[in-house]
Amino acid sequence: MSIPAALEALSSLLKDRLVRSKSDLDLHGRSETHFAPCPPDAVAYPQTTEEVAALMRICTEQGCPVVGWGAGTSLEAQALAIRGGVVVDFARMNKVLEIRPEDMDCTVQPGITREALNVDLRATGLFFPVDPGANASIGGMAMTRASGTTAVRYGTMRDNVLGLEAVLADGRVIRTGTRARKSSAGYDLTGLLVGSEGTLGLITELTLRLQGQPEAVSSGVCAFDRIEDAVAAVMETIQMGIPMARIEFVDAAAAAAFNAYAGDTLPECPHLMIEFHGSDAGVAEQARRFGEIADEHNGKGFRWSSLEEDRRALWAMRHNGYYAILASKRGAQALVTDICVPISRLAQAVEETRADIAASIIPGPILGHVGDGNFHAILLVDPERPEELDEAKRLSHRMVERALTLGGTATGEHGVGVGKLDYMAREHGQAWDVMGEIKRALDPQGILNPGKLVRGN
Amino acid sequence: MSIPAALEALSSLLKDRLVRSKSDLDLHGRSETHFAPCPPDAVAYPQTTEEVAALMRICTEQGCPVVGWGAGTSLEAQALAIRGGVVVDFARMNKVLEIRPEDMDCTVQPGITREALNVDLRATGLFFPVDPGANASIGGMAMTRASGTTAVRYGTMRDNVLGLEAVLADGRVIRTGTRARKSSAGYDLTGLLVGSEGTLGLITELTLRLQGQPEAVSSGVCAFDRIEDAVAAVMETIQMGIPMARIEFVDAAAAAAFNAYAGDTLPECPHLMIEFHGSDAGVAEQARRFGEIADEHNGKGFRWSSLEEDRRALWAMRHNGYYAILASKRGAQALVTDICVPISRLAQAVEETRADIAASIIPGPILGHVGDGNFHAILLVDPERPEELDEAKRLSHRMVERALTLGGTATGEHGVGVGKLDYMAREHGQAWDVMGEIKRALDPQGILNPGKLVRGN
Ligand SMILES: Cc1cc2nc3c(=O)[nH]c(=O)nc-3n(C[C@H](O)[C@H](O)[C@H](O)COP(=O)(O)OP(=O)(O)OC[C@H]3O[C@@H](n4cnc5c(N)ncnc54)[C@H](O)[C@@H]3O)c2cc1C
Ligand SMILES: Cc1cc2nc3c(=O)[nH]c(=O)nc-3n(C[C@H](O)[C@H](O)[C@H](O)COP(=O)(O)OP(=O)(O)OC[C@H]3O[C@@H](n4cnc5c(N)ncnc54)[C@H](O)[C@@H]3O)c2cc1C
Repeated sequence: MSIPAALEALSSLLKDRLVRSKSDLDLHGRSETHFAPCPPDAVAYPQTTEEVAALMRICTEQGCPVVGWGAGTSLEAQALAIRGGVVVDFARMNKVLEIRPEDMDCTVQPGITREALNVDLRATGLFFPVDPGANASIGGMAMTRASGTTAVRYGTMRDNVLGLEAVLADGRVIRTGTRARKSSAGYDLTGLLVGSEGTLGLITELTLRLQGQPEAVSSGVCAFDRIEDAVAAVMETIQMGIPMARIEFVDAAAAAAFNAYAGDTLPECPHLMIEFHGSDAGVAEQARRFGEIADEHNGKGFRWSSLEEDRRALWAMRHNGYYAILASKRGAQALVTDICVPISRLAQAVEETRADIAASIIPGPILGHVGDGNFHAILLVDPERPEELDEAKRLSHRMVERALTLGGTATGEHGVGVGKLDYMAREHGQAWDVMGEIKRALDPQGILNPGKLVRGN
Repeated sequence: MSIPAALEALSSLLKDRLVRSKSDLDLHGRSETHFAPCPPDAVAYPQTTEEVAALMRICTEQGCPVVGWGAGTSLEAQALAIRGGVVVDFARMNKVLEIRPEDMDCTVQPGITREALNVDLRATGLFFPVDPGANASIGGMAMTRASGTTAVRYGTMRDNVLGLEAVLADGRVIRTGTRARKSSAGYDLTGLLVGSEGTLGLITELTLRLQGQPEAVSSGVCAFDRIEDAVAAVMETIQMGIPMARIEFVDAAAAAAFNAYAGDTLPECPHLMIEFHGSDAGVAEQARRFGEIADEHNGKGFRWSSLEEDRRALWAMRHNGYYAILASKRGAQALVTDICVPISRLAQAVEETRADIAASIIPGPILGHVGDGNFHAILLVDPERPEELDEAKRLSHRMVERALTLGGTATGEHGVGVGKLDYMAREHGQAWDVMGEIKRALDPQGILNPGKLVRGN
């Protein structure tokens, strides 16, 4: 039982689709954030479910770790093979298998990216709404239970995956869910797999809910002097039930970074960026009501537009936010935090975080999907100065403690990976043990993404 | 290890809250449908989580089956102790623990009924939207993953439970979920427990999402000559993205039963019953758009009203539908079917079902939450005539086969219980084995609701 024996068998299974070149290993050993590189022993590029099942049987027989890979954009080092073994890159399983406009669903392979899927959907008048900004793979998004800017309206991957095909540790291929919109037929295995970060199985197919493209879309920006005011406006908007499609917070430091990166001209103060979806009349009414709420909370210069180009410019700015912030400190790496709290605690959580960062030695602009109570401080560290990473970890730790104390979670959307593992016991108590028991029932040898998500994995 | 020894220990734990009177056993041995009565050995009425945990430890030690009981309204004999043992009735754990209007959530004990909860919520301007018609308990609704008339707008129990407290088979008390609106912190244990029919643990607390009472509500009825037309109108309404709050189908036989039961005066033909939630302008626009669609599909006499009394009368009629239908055949019992199919297959599924029933020896009016693709034929049998139950089972079997062939599920909302157990292998394939593996990991002795949901339980 050994990794070399597994690689030998895998290489006769996959031929040149088992790759061990340094460049490929390096590419699959990096993450987008501050984690140290950690190349796997090999990268596999399967093309069919049968190949994935055969691969899994080999790895089980040889006790070789198996780690899925979508687009590699996850932020907590989820896709790094920290115990070695084989990374399974789904780049060649990236097809749309079926689109069923009349049922507003589709079936895809895991490697397709959300942007490619939306291009394929365009002609149908439908779209897949979950939008983490990064051009992530649908399989990776399901595995981290991703969400992003539109979750406030359309939900997260939890809400938008109807069913899965998965290959379990022992090579069994299962299908979960049906194409019915709801079911009470037993345990929700789809829901159990979504968010499992590849620790229970590899996903080889996904059936997704789609949404109709709204008749009208408009978007806008509103500036605030104070964080409290911006957050209070968000809270009231949500409580009034205004069906916001997006409602994003950006602090003054983030606004400054956007300006410097792309020549934007935002006033350097907190902002909300919003989008409305609906009928022409509906969108106008929503914008009017939001405008009134913003006014009451000293919002300034709220303007909205239905022009496609304005909208694209706004969201390009927001979606480049991470890179703009990274660029604001030369040579920096980021520790990205991701707490989510009940909406009534959002102002407190953001303000205390802001104050903590202001008193620290490192910068940390804040961005957030605040309609869900979720925000990120992008803590910027110089990789040459270990004291900065220590400081970022201290700030991150305080954020998580704060979130848990306020009834929230250590990670609203980025997942556990390596970076949040140490908080699972605190967040879940004995329920974390139960996760481990489920893991061991389905993967007794612990070959699936070892070192992640559950205790002692 | 024995049931009598367990009862002795339970009786010193609970004193007069462990009941063995014939009347109480009989009450907890019946279901609302055709299943033969099956009284448990005792009924327990715990008052605290600690008592539930102590009870569970005793039952595990003695190998005594434990079956939860909410309001006993489930339709597949889920709450019957078919292997004997103790039924745990949550009637005395029925408090609202906390309502947090600013976060639009609340925490309740499992025994509270949805009607009682909504009375308590009234002053807050919020409501709990899941509405199975019956005045079920919130705990029971979570355990069957209930939905009902409003799921098309607000989702099912899957979407509306944020977190749980549960007592596992070994007496451990776990908490799942947080009060954050979303989280990526590990396996979704809340989602795993919802719909588990008491086979993985007893639920002692639930945190629920609430909804703001809409500014305006209006409702209406529309008649159709043909089932196909009614269903086509539903499909188009859903595909156009009109945010219906309710869209219910009733066939001619059901309309006739409603008339006979409560003196209603519906024309005896298929109908849609609808409700709109929104702003005054929004509701009017939705009604107008729905009216146009209904017109195109030969809908007749669509009228809508915002009067509270009209609305109450309409939904009282619909919610009494089951009893109206039962009363339409003297002394009848019902076998209630519950298939759910992709919306594009709904017309076919309803029509073929209708034709099957028309050709059979028993009546079977059809009702459905058709916005989700879910409908019920209420198959009426004379309990004295076994051939009628056989016929109902044959018809039900054909419906399930049809649903599965069309990409749907054997049960959209009622759950598995005893009645749908035989279809789980067909619906889930090997994924059903995986459910069994999870069950055995968490309840190795199989004391929690034995005989239900998983194979060989
Ligand atoms: C600039 C930037 C902005 C971002 N913004 C957001 C945001 O707003 N919201 C948000 O939610 N996330 C955000 N992210 C994080 C990231 O995009 C998400 O975590 C995304 O879901 C990762 O998808 P991926 O395809 O890159 O997955 P990967 O990183 O490749 O993998 C993620 C996890 O899934 C596993 N995996 C991948 N494919 C499979 C498979 N087929 N079977 C089994 N396991 C598999 C991997 O092993 C790993 O554990 C952002 C990232 C960046 C770089
Ligand atoms: C007239 C009528 C109409 C109906 N219409 C609908 C409908 O439209 N939609 C729908 O979804 N359902 C409908 N139902 C079915 C029923 O109301 C639901 O299944 C409901 O969820 C059952 O809730 P209950 O409190 O009665 O649960 P029970 O019947 O008491 O129990 C249901 C299951 O949950 C378990 N359980 C109960 N409480 C707990 C607990 N605290 N911990 C662990 N396990 C527990 C039981 O063991 C059992 O397995 C209808 C029923 C009737 C009689």
